[in-house]
Amino acid sequence: MSTSDIAKKYFELCQKHQNHIALETLFAADAVSIEAAAMPGASAETRGLQAIMGKGKTWMDNHEVHEASMEGPWPNGNRFIVRFTYDVTNKPSGRRMQMDETALFTVENDKIVREEFFYNAG
Amino acid sequence: MSTSDIAKKYFELCQKHQNHIALETLFAADAVSIEAAAMPGASAETRGLQAIMGKGKTWMDNHEVHEASMEGPWPNGNRFIVRFTYDVTNKPSGRRMQMDETALFTVENDKIVREEFFYNAG
Repeated sequence: MSTSDIAKKYFELCQKHQNHIALETLFAADAVSIEAAAMPGASAETRGLQAIMGKGKTWMDNHEVHEASMEGPWPNGNRFIVRFTYDVTNKPSGRRMQMDETALFTVENDKIVREEFFYNAG
Repeated sequence: MSTSDIAKKYFELCQKHQNHIALETLFAADAVSIEAAAMPGASAETRGLQAIMGKGKTWMDNHEVHEASMEGPWPNGNRFIVRFTYDVTNKPSGRRMQMDETALFTVENDKIVREEFFYNAG
């Protein structure tokens, strides 16, 4: 698959809320996920698909998602960008917030090996 | 300046249509600009600030801009992403088109050394 095909497949699965299938089928076992900032008590970098799935589950457990949307994908060479916007309530704090981030994905040997999240500072 | 400060400054100047000032003040002399695809008769890669300015001028000379908007910036470490959408008419062909691209900028020693454009494939 070309990077553009992988980008479209990733986008399509996530839009159908099948993020776990996107992770299982499109990510390398040793993929790395990098946040723009570390959350309290956590590292900005998560190594390995199992740990990335765990991070996703923790986030879902801690947030009520009122609305989520995606834009893109924008490919270039072996990388692509996707934009995510969320309207969520953080369950522990009860705080409702709007999140706007872009993610840069890197593909090697037909698998996503790296995802890096960029947070809107505008 | 932090990458986030450079990102905000870049964004602010371009929003005021002062792209030339953004290039002159924020870019390194040996900066590289990379398109997601090469235009006919041109390379996808443009090396050096003078050549990048030339590329911008050629584009402006060949397009009538009906509307332009920017979103972001999204910083992460020494990089940031900006989204550009344009409604333009290509003067030579008379063809009107909507462009939607994101750009990934890399900062080193307080200057932008690399800009890479990703085109929407969605």
